[in-house]
Amino acid sequence: MGSVIGKNVKISVFGQSHSKAIGVTIDGLPAGISIDMEELKKFMKRRAPGQGAHTTTRKEGDQPEFLSGLVENTTCGAPLCAVIPNTNTRSSDYENLKDVPRPGHADYPAQMKFHGFQDVAGGGHFSGRLTAPVCLAGNICMQALAKRGIQVAAHIYRIGHVQDRPVNPADPIQADLQKVREKAFPVLEDEKGEQMLRAIDQAKKDLDSLGGVIECVITGVPAGIGNPMFEGIENRIAAAAFGIPAVKGIEFGNGFGCVGLRGSQNNDSYEMREGEIVTRTNRHGGILGGISTGMPIVFRVAMKPTSSIAMEQDSVSMRDKVNTKLVVHGRHDPCIVPRAVPCVEAIAALTIYDMILEQ
Amino acid sequence: MGSVIGKNVKISVFGQSHSKAIGVTIDGLPAGISIDMEELKKFMKRRAPGQGAHTTTRKEGDQPEFLSGLVENTTCGAPLCAVIPNTNTRSSDYENLKDVPRPGHADYPAQMKFHGFQDVAGGGHFSGRLTAPVCLAGNICMQALAKRGIQVAAHIYRIGHVQDRPVNPADPIQADLQKVREKAFPVLEDEKGEQMLRAIDQAKKDLDSLGGVIECVITGVPAGIGNPMFEGIENRIAAAAFGIPAVKGIEFGNGFGCVGLRGSQNNDSYEMREGEIVTRTNRHGGILGGISTGMPIVFRVAMKPTSSIAMEQDSVSMRDKVNTKLVVHGRHDPCIVPRAVPCVEAIAALTIYDMILEQ
Amino acid sequence: MGSVIGKNVKISVFGQSHSKAIGVTIDGLPAGISIDMEELKKFMKRRAPGQGAHTTTRKEGDQPEFLSGLVENTTCGAPLCAVIPNTNTRSSDYENLKDVPRPGHADYPAQMKFHGFQDVAGGGHFSGRLTAPVCLAGNICMQALAKRGIQVAAHIYRIGHVQDRPVNPADPIQADLQKVREKAFPVLEDEKGEQMLRAIDQAKKDLDSLGGVIECVITGVPAGIGNPMFEGIENRIAAAAFGIPAVKGIEFGNGFGCVGLRGSQNNDSYEMREGEIVTRTNRHGGILGGISTGMPIVFRVAMKPTSSIAMEQDSVSMRDKVNTKLVVHGRHDPCIVPRAVPCVEAIAALTIYDMILEQ
Amino acid sequence: MGSVIGKNVKISVFGQSHSKAIGVTIDGLPAGISIDMEELKKFMKRRAPGQGAHTTTRKEGDQPEFLSGLVENTTCGAPLCAVIPNTNTRSSDYENLKDVPRPGHADYPAQMKFHGFQDVAGGGHFSGRLTAPVCLAGNICMQALAKRGIQVAAHIYRIGHVQDRPVNPADPIQADLQKVREKAFPVLEDEKGEQMLRAIDQAKKDLDSLGGVIECVITGVPAGIGNPMFEGIENRIAAAAFGIPAVKGIEFGNGFGCVGLRGSQNNDSYEMREGEIVTRTNRHGGILGGISTGMPIVFRVAMKPTSSIAMEQDSVSMRDKVNTKLVVHGRHDPCIVPRAVPCVEAIAALTIYDMILEQ
Repeated sequence: MGSVIGKNVKISVFGQSHSKAIGVTIDGLPAGISIDMEELKKFMKRRAPGQGAHTTTRKEGDQPEFLSGLVENTTCGAPLCAVIPNTNTRSSDYENLKDVPRPGHADYPAQMKFHGFQDVAGGGHFSGRLTAPVCLAGNICMQALAKRGIQVAAHIYRIGHVQDRPVNPADPIQADLQKVREKAFPVLEDEKGEQMLRAIDQAKKDLDSLGGVIECVITGVPAGIGNPMFEGIENRIAAAAFGIPAVKGIEFGNGFGCVGLRGSQNNDSYEMREGEIVTRTNRHGGILGGISTGMPIVFRVAMKPTSSIAMEQDSVSMRDKVNTKLVVHGRHDPCIVPRAVPCVEAIAALTIYDMILEQ
Repeated sequence: MGSVIGKNVKISVFGQSHSKAIGVTIDGLPAGISIDMEELKKFMKRRAPGQGAHTTTRKEGDQPEFLSGLVENTTCGAPLCAVIPNTNTRSSDYENLKDVPRPGHADYPAQMKFHGFQDVAGGGHFSGRLTAPVCLAGNICMQALAKRGIQVAAHIYRIGHVQDRPVNPADPIQADLQKVREKAFPVLEDEKGEQMLRAIDQAKKDLDSLGGVIECVITGVPAGIGNPMFEGIENRIAAAAFGIPAVKGIEFGNGFGCVGLRGSQNNDSYEMREGEIVTRTNRHGGILGGISTGMPIVFRVAMKPTSSIAMEQDSVSMRDKVNTKLVVHGRHDPCIVPRAVPCVEAIAALTIYDMILEQ
Repeated sequence: MGSVIGKNVKISVFGQSHSKAIGVTIDGLPAGISIDMEELKKFMKRRAPGQGAHTTTRKEGDQPEFLSGLVENTTCGAPLCAVIPNTNTRSSDYENLKDVPRPGHADYPAQMKFHGFQDVAGGGHFSGRLTAPVCLAGNICMQALAKRGIQVAAHIYRIGHVQDRPVNPADPIQADLQKVREKAFPVLEDEKGEQMLRAIDQAKKDLDSLGGVIECVITGVPAGIGNPMFEGIENRIAAAAFGIPAVKGIEFGNGFGCVGLRGSQNNDSYEMREGEIVTRTNRHGGILGGISTGMPIVFRVAMKPTSSIAMEQDSVSMRDKVNTKLVVHGRHDPCIVPRAVPCVEAIAALTIYDMILEQ
Repeated sequence: MGSVIGKNVKISVFGQSHSKAIGVTIDGLPAGISIDMEELKKFMKRRAPGQGAHTTTRKEGDQPEFLSGLVENTTCGAPLCAVIPNTNTRSSDYENLKDVPRPGHADYPAQMKFHGFQDVAGGGHFSGRLTAPVCLAGNICMQALAKRGIQVAAHIYRIGHVQDRPVNPADPIQADLQKVREKAFPVLEDEKGEQMLRAIDQAKKDLDSLGGVIECVITGVPAGIGNPMFEGIENRIAAAAFGIPAVKGIEFGNGFGCVGLRGSQNNDSYEMREGEIVTRTNRHGGILGGISTGMPIVFRVAMKPTSSIAMEQDSVSMRDKVNTKLVVHGRHDPCIVPRAVPCVEAIAALTIYDMILEQ
């Protein structure tokens, strides 16, 4: 239970880190969307590991195979299923986990929920690897959105104590956003990016890890999309965003930052601009009452530092009910944030596309 | 679309600020839950306006009438419907809003979505008044949870620049939490509460408003509740929390705070305590991989400063497509945070109760 | 659990036979639908009891009160809630039912599901009275459909052994369908109607009851509405239709009748007619592969004879676990079919309107 | 949209007749169900074609490959995905269908819904072949149900004008039901089976086809499963059953047959039997008010004669908008009913298992 999301476009994600394959079924894609496979591949690559010193050296093929739903790379109205084979199956790196849960991982609650039947290898279904099919589905939606003039772009907003320049929410520079998607290390200010990389390297040397914040912008969403109360854009994006492992917080517009402001400082005045009603500023992040205002939608997610660190940690033996020590083996990103950037774009695209079809 | 939430216990909220009544239908409540009407009334009162100098002087009866679902105050398995009459209907305070949208309110996106048919009086279905039936439903779930040893309590964590003492997430003092629910101004440190009240008074005098943060703790949830990916506890609580007007952010455990930490500082070690597996600290907020760990569930929501401020603001005439000035009349809370505390408890209770029934 | 249905237009039905009120919340109605209250009242009256010798003499007011969702009788986009007060509450007619279940009623399974907490008075939430709010919601959808040129009409197809003339599914005469909705006893052939009435009278005299079949036609649905597999029109109408008490079967087009035919006799050939693609015959009932073909949608539901009969029946004491005799008191329709006709129209309208909004 | 069903156990079916593969994702299977792969294979084989003179000669491997969700053939709580490769892809048998719709098939409504982008080869996603993954998912549920003492069995009730002995709904002979599942031609009376086979052969010789009725029995379901109104057992089974191509009707218990009976003849009296409350007869088919009574659940589905017949039929050219003739090529079952028997069992198992987990 839990790996299905969406109302009109419903995705069902499957796979474990070391199962034969991982993948996604997408039900409800309108017929007639032609998919640019090169763009998809490029997008998937942004999430793939092994692309720099700062990421895990584990190799993933991540070449999706489409089992259904397409006729000549165009959606045919039938559910689309795409799988990504796991070449790296049944590793013995993880044997110990059946008994000694890793701090910060789902090992212990999974044991309690699945009574010992869960697949522990590589984190099983809780593995960050499961974001690959989410990216796949997300990019298909992104391509469909682009045809409607809607663009999704995210950048690393912060890693550890280093912060990138924030997007101007009232007028994000499209060129910037386009460029950031092309970058190996997606920041607006490359100098900040270099500081971040150095911080990651240092954490790695210290057998430790770092977290960060990703900022995402969606431009071109017309006013009037969304719903009041429990089906607003915020509700839906948040519900999807916490599906990305390590996400521990989300905020829209000014978010937690609005707490230090007064209403007069936080409200966005309306004004006419070239015959259109806009807000002068965009502290509301493009959403009021759950519904889009026509301004760019802006949100940020907080990601915790990678739980898998190489230094020894305290844990317990679940079998013997005694304290013990644990050293987590395997190859792990000292900071997952850079690779999570396309994942955040993906869940934004999935959600917005689903909501637009609702109208 | 949007005012229904829940899977096993499904609530459907209805009403506008100035319609004949507001209320809620709850489908799926197990039969046999006896409801303590006094406790419910007391809980509803915490949300009700008019209780102090810092809240609106508007009077709301908020006495629910149960139309169905109960036999002698005990749930009978049939959907429960409770209504709260609006005594304050069809006010003329809001006439202007049909044309000039209030900054920070849903007026403009609602106009775009509902094409002018929306009920503008008092904010219509977007009014904060709609949290009354949410509290009603939430308290019923809270009473059902209490019978399972699960307690929900929230306090004002911050208003403007004044911050309350945070709860110790690894070991919240039950007595504190119990007491905070009884307080007229729910803070852990009363001295901080007084500072907050002064800040609110000052904002009011300045025709302005303040936002804040509410922290909520759920104790007694056994390990193993929840699901991976899109139906985890974080996903579900977040999806519900953004249903409270003015919420612009949510974080679990350390949340955005974990960004400045390293993995070794943010991971929670396991240890045996009195034969039970616990974590020594609780920066994860009781949830890993979407599933409860048995530690207290802790989250915080950010609420923006009240949008309705008495000072003049810039806006537009939607009809004439020209810039104009707007003065918002009516009685408004200079800070909605104190009254939102039970609302946050309510959505927490609704969500956790729904998820526990899933097992 | 169970009294919510719909995807885009979600209805939540509440109430028990003898609770303070019954009613319905409708979430997702598009804004701007003006409701003709006279037409609604007229429609509700078709379902109301006490209209002839063949129905129960129980009086129901059935005058709905709209609590929310309307501004000047026009939907405003907020959830609509309408309640119908029960004047007839807490009757003592049903005291015995807590212990001795009525054959053919939900008393026994309800006892097993709700562990004795269910509301037994008048059948509680299982009462046929709960179809009143369904009719209310259905008629609102019907009025919205009519604006799109879609008409829903049903007639009594059979009662006991007397059968009405079937509709010509390939070309139902609109005038006939219009007229049948105006009739006190909705049959196409009045002579058959008189035979049916005589059969009902006889059953009543014999302290017994009769069942029947209702045929429903939906005209004007464009081709291409619906979905494959589990969300086809048949799936959806069936899922709703079994929500009407006493329905035990449903068939579309030729239905069970196609079993005696060969493919060559049951297939409907396509042909051009006035530039349009149509089928010459309509044994498929307007649906192929779950999707509308543009031909009239035709289905029939089988309703069992009223379970409440006045003659003595065998039952058991659930408390004492012994056999016993039961005489069901109260006023009951010897045949529920005539009053169920608008209910069948209502669920058809609800379903089709919901599905049309999906596009 | 449409190929996802279930609430606690959610299946998502994918594939087209001639896509690379077909398959199913199952989300929400409890962890710890060990799957007997031999039993699964045997079950799948009952649906597979090419097993007798009366079925299509098309060969299907139908050997599922499990991509995820299992650890050593035991469910691990992660979504299970199983695929069945299509060996028979991109056939040119169907070229003509893009323009000339087959009577009785989804070709024309699919064209209207998917605007020409649908996959026409082999019927695309509308193909009966898509019942293979449904059977796969159904058998897994069946195995899980068996561990709770719940058995599902179906037999051919009728083909053309030949009728098998009906099951005694009040006391189906378990041995019979067990045996019928082992038979190559699943009827209770083999003599009737031979008559049916002869009728099918004759239809085939005549380039024509036959329909039929399948009767399904579910034993061992405890009383109290299900819900009132729209989530009753009947609603749910019906919603799933119309997902099987060619199903045009469904009835529970006496179904349409109860129309000719009076209440006194159709009501099932309660009585004590060995300390248990049972009904003496079972015309209600084990369900009252949507909830199980503890008696066997009995339903029948009507299947239309195979639409694909070899004789020439009238149709139209959708492109040229003129009448034309059509001869359907390819290998088709002259009667789909025998192979649909396990499909009916599958949807029954899926539904009941889903509903049992709801409690």
